[in-house]
Amino acid sequence: MYEQRLKSVREQMSALGVGTLILGPGADLRYLSGYDAHESERLTALIVPHEGPPDLYVPALEAPRAASARAELRVWTEYQDPLDLVAEAVRASRSDTIVVGDHLWSRFLIGLQERLPGVNWRLAAEALAPVRVLKTSEEIELLRRAGAAADAVWHQVLRLDVEGMTERALAARIAALLEEQGLDGAAFTTVAGGPNSASPHHAPGSRVISRGDTVVVDYGGPLDGYHSDITRALHVGPPDAETQRVYEAVREAQQRGVEAVRPGAKAGDIDLATRSFLESEGLAQYFIHRTGHGLGLEVHEPPYILGGSAVELQEGMVFSVEPGVYIPGNFGVRVEDIVVVTQDGCERLNNAPRELAVL
Amino acid sequence: MYEQRLKSVREQMSALGVGTLILGPGADLRYLSGYDAHESERLTALIVPHEGPPDLYVPALEAPRAASARAELRVWTEYQDPLDLVAEAVRASRSDTIVVGDHLWSRFLIGLQERLPGVNWRLAAEALAPVRVLKTSEEIELLRRAGAAADAVWHQVLRLDVEGMTERALAARIAALLEEQGLDGAAFTTVAGGPNSASPHHAPGSRVISRGDTVVVDYGGPLDGYHSDITRALHVGPPDAETQRVYEAVREAQQRGVEAVRPGAKAGDIDLATRSFLESEGLAQYFIHRTGHGLGLEVHEPPYILGGSAVELQEGMVFSVEPGVYIPGNFGVRVEDIVVVTQDGCERLNNAPRELAVL
Repeated sequence: MYEQRLKSVREQMSALGVGTLILGPGADLRYLSGYDAHESERLTALIVPHEGPPDLYVPALEAPRAASARAELRVWTEYQDPLDLVAEAVRASRSDTIVVGDHLWSRFLIGLQERLPGVNWRLAAEALAPVRVLKTSEEIELLRRAGAAADAVWHQVLRLDVEGMTERALAARIAALLEEQGLDGAAFTTVAGGPNSASPHHAPGSRVISRGDTVVVDYGGPLDGYHSDITRALHVGPPDAETQRVYEAVREAQQRGVEAVRPGAKAGDIDLATRSFLESEGLAQYFIHRTGHGLGLEVHEPPYILGGSAVELQEGMVFSVEPGVYIPGNFGVRVEDIVVVTQDGCERLNNAPRELAVL
Repeated sequence: MYEQRLKSVREQMSALGVGTLILGPGADLRYLSGYDAHESERLTALIVPHEGPPDLYVPALEAPRAASARAELRVWTEYQDPLDLVAEAVRASRSDTIVVGDHLWSRFLIGLQERLPGVNWRLAAEALAPVRVLKTSEEIELLRRAGAAADAVWHQVLRLDVEGMTERALAARIAALLEEQGLDGAAFTTVAGGPNSASPHHAPGSRVISRGDTVVVDYGGPLDGYHSDITRALHVGPPDAETQRVYEAVREAQQRGVEAVRPGAKAGDIDLATRSFLESEGLAQYFIHRTGHGLGLEVHEPPYILGGSAVELQEGMVFSVEPGVYIPGNFGVRVEDIVVVTQDGCERLNNAPRELAVL
């Protein structure tokens, strides 16, 4: 599996005229080496030359963790400067163009730029995204199982007595449930109650969930690195007619987005499908984010489902469809499922009930 | 408070000839603006010009969270390119030298470098570290309370029946206890049992804690952003003589390190104090990391307590003293406390018992 990935990425590197690839901790490094590196001020870096085995530079105290990585281990001690070591190796490769991981910290990039003047620096996404974006059946199966675990947690949330809980307490409970469902912990848990639900990325706080609240819940966690991501909403007590109307509009917009997914459609088409329906309901001005994002080893990765995007959907792409409406000072709602593009449409990886749950 | 911080950082900028400071999400941004930004592919950036109020660029969907930041809010929508906006603002400042946050992602730095050719790019640590490294009494009080919470958790761990628990289950329990003690969750929880204890940064896994194990536990969490960080060890059943000897050597090395802390001492002196004692015990070759790291809004920040470092300790610096011994395939131990440099020595912020706990 790792050999095939490396081969595909190297084909991209050749096409782009790239001599060397440098990745810090994160999904790209894990994708190519299997190593889930710890991010810190001590450099961990995978160096992929155009030919031959990749080298993995790791600080001595993390060498035991890195032992199973699919790369030649290059252990540096506290008394060595790892940027000197990496620069020397890269210099030997005589690369004119080097691509670096999108998330590599500036302290490492600037340190390399100082040591390697005259090099053309570009981003690794150019070489990696076209490969990572097409999931294999093994990757899809992990995403399917992660999605099913997230669905199961929603059924459990519906049985909780959330009235009187703080947002933070409900978030912690959901995190524990994700782990109980077999995921490797929670990657994120957003719980936004009442007026906080109008903030799409609200950080759960000390607000107590109360009668009359709309509560938006957005969470997910990884299974062997591959994530789930679902958003549902509940209402404490019966919702008023306007809340119900807005919710149903978002749910229908989400349905239209999912129905537009097929190979050959453009990412922008999916955004248009959700946005134009909300436009027809007079709600488009409250839909302040894109329709979705890719999902895999990262919670946000290509393809991005953004208005006007000409990115063509292909079988094996996995992303969220998640329109939302956010009325400042009042409330917000969002409905999110992950879908995988199939031969003639898509498969939803989330199937928990999409109705506004009334508790 | 934020005005004073901004003033101090600008004095550093002047001394360095820096025109503009650009910070992404993280501790530096929070230090100057109070905003705990969400890190993602959507740019959040604080731009600090040499004069006038800083600007905070935030994606529209995070604008509600950012409303209380001490900066002028510049909200960008999904249809704008935030790097274009930032580059335009920076271009107007005519800065020859720009410093960027050490953790800013390469995708943003390379994007800015393409838009702003001819600029000299350096790291923000040059301007920020000298200010952040000296903690005020308010910051020290938060660190003291976070340390006391970590101590309290260790007392609770000693009452648990850890035999038969997996490393991961004990880590989750410790995370919950940190929150119960009033911290804003756990920042990290390392639990390493048996041979895993020989890996300083072991990721807790499915190994069951068993009789005869040495278990190293390293954890901490933030209080209003300011962290704790403590390491203790326990033994399931009575340890053998060699384990006890190694443990006591590490404990004494840590004591010698703490005793060497005073204003005017060099960071390298503290490392020498711990390392030379382990040398005298024939264990220095197993001490594979530096003696400590600074602590504050980040778990690892300056000053680093590294062999040979000429950094002079000053009153108000806060850092860990944490020698360890790691015997591959066998076991490892570490003892860690946080200390704050006082007028004539130091104060420990961790006071939980340092003996090898025998369960």
